[in-house]
Amino acid sequence: MKKSPEQLYQLIEAGLAKLDYGSRPSELYGPIAYLMNLGGKRLRPLLTLIAYSIFKDNPEEITNQAMAVEVFHNFTLMHDDIMDEAPLRRGEATVHEKWDSNTAILSGDVMMVKAYELMAGNNPYLAETLAGFNKCATEVCEGQQLDMVFESRSTVEESEYIEMIKLKTAVLLGFSLELGGIMAAASKRNKHALKELGINIGIGFQLKDDLLDVYADKSKFGKQVGGDIIANKKTYLLINALNIATGATKKELKKWLSAETFDIDEKVNAVTTIYNDLGIKQKTQHTMNHYFDLGFADLKKVKGSIAQKAVLRHFAEKLIDRDN
Amino acid sequence: MKKSPEQLYQLIEAGLAKLDYGSRPSELYGPIAYLMNLGGKRLRPLLTLIAYSIFKDNPEEITNQAMAVEVFHNFTLMHDDIMDEAPLRRGEATVHEKWDSNTAILSGDVMMVKAYELMAGNNPYLAETLAGFNKCATEVCEGQQLDMVFESRSTVEESEYIEMIKLKTAVLLGFSLELGGIMAAASKRNKHALKELGINIGIGFQLKDDLLDVYADKSKFGKQVGGDIIANKKTYLLINALNIATGATKKELKKWLSAETFDIDEKVNAVTTIYNDLGIKQKTQHTMNHYFDLGFADLKKVKGSIAQKAVLRHFAEKLIDRDN
Repeated sequence: MKKSPEQLYQLIEAGLAKLDYGSRPSELYGPIAYLMNLGGKRLRPLLTLIAYSIFKDNPEEITNQAMAVEVFHNFTLMHDDIMDEAPLRRGEATVHEKWDSNTAILSGDVMMVKAYELMAGNNPYLAETLAGFNKCATEVCEGQQLDMVFESRSTVEESEYIEMIKLKTAVLLGFSLELGGIMAAASKRNKHALKELGINIGIGFQLKDDLLDVYADKSKFGKQVGGDIIANKKTYLLINALNIATGATKKELKKWLSAETFDIDEKVNAVTTIYNDLGIKQKTQHTMNHYFDLGFADLKKVKGSIAQKAVLRHFAEKLIDRDN
Repeated sequence: MKKSPEQLYQLIEAGLAKLDYGSRPSELYGPIAYLMNLGGKRLRPLLTLIAYSIFKDNPEEITNQAMAVEVFHNFTLMHDDIMDEAPLRRGEATVHEKWDSNTAILSGDVMMVKAYELMAGNNPYLAETLAGFNKCATEVCEGQQLDMVFESRSTVEESEYIEMIKLKTAVLLGFSLELGGIMAAASKRNKHALKELGINIGIGFQLKDDLLDVYADKSKFGKQVGGDIIANKKTYLLINALNIATGATKKELKKWLSAETFDIDEKVNAVTTIYNDLGIKQKTQHTMNHYFDLGFADLKKVKGSIAQKAVLRHFAEKLIDRDN
């Protein structure tokens, strides 16, 4: 009897609750427990366990590896939040705000070590796991660096943006799925398809994020609608608007980007109107759906339990249809 | 024919020169090449190769692992320099000074990944290597955290200080030697003795560093004599002086520690005089020699090539007798 995604989520939570990150010095380990306990969807370990379930039962066998991707993901959040000077994470103070930057640097470092430790725990496919994980971890760092570089550049090509979100966000989803395949001793072809599936769906997810920031239903969206617009964040929407707009529209868009004082609602409404006039919403949806389509085509290439492939498809669809 | 330490050094340098850390984005990889190319004694990889040579020839087989400890060591330098706000490293601008803190955080992160990648490369003893490396990396982070915690505390016990330098500095020397044993498939007893040897010698080295800061020959010492005194750094000497001094001596020491403006030479001379009056130099030498003795006793427990054990002993003695 296969476990449902809800049961797998419970498995992950139970595993994380039992994890001993270390205790002394408390300044090092307190922030790790704090961040990990802020919760979240546990999306990445869920993908690992669901991918595994396409080939094998007993997901309990690979909870270490599933938790490893979650710990690694949270390590990237801890360090990214320092770099982005983010005050909040999941509605609570970020580690560098609650403690300080030095603590967040060092606790993050030890989290990365813990991720490797979990990855290596009870793992008959250690060399292959590490090769994939090292490549993924390197690419995630490259993506974060590109993100910072792009924020200080005046123009960014659409293809550069897609490459950046692929590295920063999508490759870890790809590896999370691939990892399930590795641990299940799946075929090379299956592992490759799972990885590509994760990357394509991951790019789609990030485009969805960009879209929701502007077009989410205020009553359902957890964050402030237009947050990216207010911060001049170089999203897929803004990059395309800057590349497409001409004449008076371009001038107005640039005016809002360089405005130092402004009424928040006025700016959000004005930039949203520009996006609407330029057809940016449709363009973004089109690109997003293109990547989701690629992802579902990848899923078709996976040979394994049809029922569990349907679970993975349904799980991805729910994420695609989310409104916050 | 065994290679001499000088030949092993050349082997490491040749390997490092050929390493491809990555290229794009240049903001991520430039700082890694910069820091690695600042040079250094390559002490840790040398220890790995010399330990290996006690049991096996062909050190070329394990240059990946030897380079891994060097890359890891430099990763810790990159992050520690941010935390310590250090302007210089080996006489050149630190990465966070030459670029910025965000770059140093992220380049450091990717260096840690590279260290794991090198550790895993061509490694038949991967699981054992990783177990040792993960433990060591965790302890190094713990040591750095303790160092920061101690700097903000009013008193530190001598035993706490020894534990801190053991974690921050000595365990990596211990692991570097142990790694040579692991890669040579040495016995458990041999690997343990090598590790303990590195830890004990490492504690001695750090005490030597603390001593040299105050008592080095100005004409031979690469740095400013008394740098730790000027910065109120909680070295073994200061911690003991604070714990031993009473009455007027303690009052004078505390006066110098809290002085906001002072003549540098006057402070260095005054604190050195206090150390002399309290017998701190002798006490530090005594403790240092105790750890060196423990280390050489560990070396005796290692069963392998007597000639190569002598090479290791001679190599360690040269480091012990250094005057800068």
